[in-house]
Amino acid sequence: MGIILGDNQYGKAENRIVRIVRDSARHEIRDVNVSTCLRGRFDDAHLTGDQGAVLPTDTQKQTAYAYAKTVGLASLERYALALATHFIADIEPVDQARVELEEFAWERVSVGGAEHDHTWVRAGQEVRTVAVTVEDGATWITGGLKDLTVLKSTGSEFHGFLSDEYTVLEPTSDRIMATSLVAKWRFGDVDAATFDFDESYAEIKAALVETFADHHSLALQQTLYEMGKAALEAVPELVEVRLSAPNKHHFLYDLGRFGIDNANEVFHADDRPYGLIQASVTREDAPAAGPAWQQYTGLV
Amino acid sequence: MGIILGDNQYGKAENRIVRIVRDSARHEIRDVNVSTCLRGRFDDAHLTGDQGAVLPTDTQKQTAYAYAKTVGLASLERYALALATHFIADIEPVDQARVELEEFAWERVSVGGAEHDHTWVRAGQEVRTVAVTVEDGATWITGGLKDLTVLKSTGSEFHGFLSDEYTVLEPTSDRIMATSLVAKWRFGDVDAATFDFDESYAEIKAALVETFADHHSLALQQTLYEMGKAALEAVPELVEVRLSAPNKHHFLYDLGRFGIDNANEVFHADDRPYGLIQASVTREDAPAAGPAWQQYTGLV
Amino acid sequence: MGIILGDNQYGKAENRIVRIVRDSARHEIRDVNVSTCLRGRFDDAHLTGDQGAVLPTDTQKQTAYAYAKTVGLASLERYALALATHFIADIEPVDQARVELEEFAWERVSVGGAEHDHTWVRAGQEVRTVAVTVEDGATWITGGLKDLTVLKSTGSEFHGFLSDEYTVLEPTSDRIMATSLVAKWRFGDVDAATFDFDESYAEIKAALVETFADHHSLALQQTLYEMGKAALEAVPELVEVRLSAPNKHHFLYDLGRFGIDNANEVFHADDRPYGLIQASVTREDAPAAGPAWQQYTGLV
Amino acid sequence: MGIILGDNQYGKAENRIVRIVRDSARHEIRDVNVSTCLRGRFDDAHLTGDQGAVLPTDTQKQTAYAYAKTVGLASLERYALALATHFIADIEPVDQARVELEEFAWERVSVGGAEHDHTWVRAGQEVRTVAVTVEDGATWITGGLKDLTVLKSTGSEFHGFLSDEYTVLEPTSDRIMATSLVAKWRFGDVDAATFDFDESYAEIKAALVETFADHHSLALQQTLYEMGKAALEAVPELVEVRLSAPNKHHFLYDLGRFGIDNANEVFHADDRPYGLIQASVTREDAPAAGPAWQQYTGLV
Repeated sequence: MGIILGDNQYGKAENRIVRIVRDSARHEIRDVNVSTCLRGRFDDAHLTGDQGAVLPTDTQKQTAYAYAKTVGLASLERYALALATHFIADIEPVDQARVELEEFAWERVSVGGAEHDHTWVRAGQEVRTVAVTVEDGATWITGGLKDLTVLKSTGSEFHGFLSDEYTVLEPTSDRIMATSLVAKWRFGDVDAATFDFDESYAEIKAALVETFADHHSLALQQTLYEMGKAALEAVPELVEVRLSAPNKHHFLYDLGRFGIDNANEVFHADDRPYGLIQASVTREDAPAAGPAWQQYTGLV
Repeated sequence: MGIILGDNQYGKAENRIVRIVRDSARHEIRDVNVSTCLRGRFDDAHLTGDQGAVLPTDTQKQTAYAYAKTVGLASLERYALALATHFIADIEPVDQARVELEEFAWERVSVGGAEHDHTWVRAGQEVRTVAVTVEDGATWITGGLKDLTVLKSTGSEFHGFLSDEYTVLEPTSDRIMATSLVAKWRFGDVDAATFDFDESYAEIKAALVETFADHHSLALQQTLYEMGKAALEAVPELVEVRLSAPNKHHFLYDLGRFGIDNANEVFHADDRPYGLIQASVTREDAPAAGPAWQQYTGLV
Repeated sequence: MGIILGDNQYGKAENRIVRIVRDSARHEIRDVNVSTCLRGRFDDAHLTGDQGAVLPTDTQKQTAYAYAKTVGLASLERYALALATHFIADIEPVDQARVELEEFAWERVSVGGAEHDHTWVRAGQEVRTVAVTVEDGATWITGGLKDLTVLKSTGSEFHGFLSDEYTVLEPTSDRIMATSLVAKWRFGDVDAATFDFDESYAEIKAALVETFADHHSLALQQTLYEMGKAALEAVPELVEVRLSAPNKHHFLYDLGRFGIDNANEVFHADDRPYGLIQASVTREDAPAAGPAWQQYTGLV
Repeated sequence: MGIILGDNQYGKAENRIVRIVRDSARHEIRDVNVSTCLRGRFDDAHLTGDQGAVLPTDTQKQTAYAYAKTVGLASLERYALALATHFIADIEPVDQARVELEEFAWERVSVGGAEHDHTWVRAGQEVRTVAVTVEDGATWITGGLKDLTVLKSTGSEFHGFLSDEYTVLEPTSDRIMATSLVAKWRFGDVDAATFDFDESYAEIKAALVETFADHHSLALQQTLYEMGKAALEAVPELVEVRLSAPNKHHFLYDLGRFGIDNANEVFHADDRPYGLIQASVTREDAPAAGPAWQQYTGLV
């Protein structure tokens, strides 16, 4: 009954890199949080403390900043791919490298109706995410977003549900539906060197948001499925979409006690607990996911 | 050497009220966090436990939700004013009432190029704040914003500073300047019943942001002063602007060690510590502030 | 190229339940955050909006609170097991149920040297976690902790590492090592009705902390492995331990510029980036993990 | 109607300093978050951008770290006093300096029943705070704590309160009372060079906690007053205590709907809104507070 080392990985998390492009008076900005994760033959580091196979996390940091200059961040996906490929190509003990990014969006300040050349305000709708995993001869690219908070004040029902002795919820044919969406999507075969990931990002976000708005919902489950389906239909290169949606409850406030009518007008936005719905929507012929979904922080 | 009760106050903090207006198919939304604070003759509650003068915080909550329907939230300031006035007019032991609001902004979802009637996405640029204080015969109204994160990639210098034996900072004539702005402003005489607070909010925000962008900065102190001045010039009803600006440091990353030139292109966005600059800009003839700045959470 | 529904799950997250036992003047308290997650035949809810197979998340909430009374929280694991078993036994469409708990610890207030009967102060060392997954005929129980922050001011080295052209880190034979530990462990065959999970929790925590303290570290990887091994040796019923450790960097502050010697005495505790090391330590003959590690929030 | 500069201040916030004392094998640790704030003649920096009177915040940071070595952190108050005194004594334009500290407590790890020499676990009960303000010839010292979460499961009533048309709260003679306490206290005349601030801190915390536990409460207001009074009685050098207490509501869960009796046993711990009670308790002959309570972040 021996004790052995199981799966393991390590890297540098949350390098906060800001990249300015200043080739002209009109600057560009990319603001990212980069985490690098290496998987490979690191048994000795654990078992004996011998670090001979361990590239320091500090070195991974230096490399992430260096690549922000040499490769640049014009494409988040190509930056991540270059960085991950470097680790498996140049660092012998590394079998698999994963690079995860969060992007914080900025929009140009408007001054007198014109976009400013070198000043931005942080745009807070959502955080874009990217995760690229590379092995010798294989690559997995996923995109995503988080913290996209959407709300519809009507067009959402919930009734006909299963009930038991603990069921006291009243069915409703008109409620607020709100969520803070997390979405991740997996690309199938794309030519990563030329594919326009920024354009597909915009298309996917639009598909998700427009479906949330326009789809008359019988449940958050149904809405999520339709959102995932719309994203897959919008971007042929996608093979799977995963969605996580907290049901941010807005409870109709009981004003009747004070003789005040409240016809779906005043709500209490509650914090906890919340329903949490998660679903994957996929193409029937999607290739196996491999390590695409194995997040850096997913092992523990 | 007796021990006595000093200043005291109480209320209900963070009522998360969402108000939908659904008079037509095109709904409107206001999403606020409301705190109510009462100051007055509550000594017995503290000294003997007699609650006869204490209107429960639960009652304050009910009132805040009820007023969201009866007064409505079309104007944040008029809602706050009505609520505060109710407390001092109708609750005998109350001498002063303060209502503080945060507003979370939503923007309409665009579907096929058209604004959706009843679906919104949370707009994250900043949180708008309002604080109204009412006594018998007197009213103080302040507005504000927080978490407005702005960055300029050039047009900012810092040199010629005082130095001593602990000074190792290099002067610079070109740096990133970034901050997450908190601003508060105090109105002088306005007809609260008719003044367009939403319009003045937009004007003040524009003045702050445009000045941040266009003003060539010799220091964050100078930029803050110019921003406050611009806001006062933009809205004659303002008498004072207060600004708090963390200097969100972006350190040029040393890539020279790797033979890579870094001409203000790659930066590390640091978390802590940060410079913190605060200033008030005021009209010479501004009336005394009274309790305008005495925040609910400011006593302790 | 059809589009189909993939994995999905739903439930109620973060029910904040406080349970007092008041059978005598000496009360007991359990303070937990409970999330319930159901997996099963919910395709119709997604595909057509038919909720006939969906037990509302509100019902799951009511059940969680009801079981806090009828089953009680004297054992977190048995409470979770009872709740999960109820869902698969009594709710027909449910194939698998998972209940996740966080426990917030309280310790009795000391008054005049004696423990108080009904007053506690929140003890903040760590948050205890439990996750129980139940299918028809099978059960998986995991325990864990998070946010356990430990630091040693010596007894930690890091040298002999792999280096490349981006490596500038200096090797060290004496550094601060600090982490905010997340640990999860999986039980093999235990009689859940009688096993003393609280005692094993204390033993595992002690094994982790004592090993962190006493083991002379050549790298965080090595320390983690030894910690996991010590936990497995301390509690025979464990079959696997997973550890996630951010390397909370404490950088020696450069005071030499001011003519001040700093012999590992003054450090800057940095926020980001941080190394992040994760490892599993397991028995050679450990049974397959099945869904034990499939966290509620792990799908997306 | 000119526009002028009003109050202003600046400094370096949140220097995360860890100080190890390693004079023997048994190390000591102090872990603090230090903010320095200067007030003085900085008009030119704001009005013209001339930084000649501005000691950079970077220099303040270097000084804070340097003093952590030269003065040390054995006494938080004496460290803060030395640092603040340096700024007004040695930096000509500075009229007033304020140093604020938060201390994160660590306790020694126990290994085999013995305290470990150089390993600690972060103790999470509360964060200790200190603020020292110095002018030429005058000093104000305050202490405090925050995030001390206490709960009593009985011994708390609330009834006899004022009611109006919005009052629906039921009076109660037995409820959970819980809060996350913020306390600040002001010292009168003490010999800062010799006074045992650590001992007084322990006495004040004990007075607050024991009173919370033992005092039969008719309202949180009454409990707060008694807590402040107990602290003043315990430490003669104190002249004022300020307390801020969110009423962390624990709502009795309605299980009667399911035929289950719930005699103050199962509660829902709600997040928002919460009552918020604040009070000052002071000696009748307390000297004027001066700038003692003027927090760094209090201007805006």
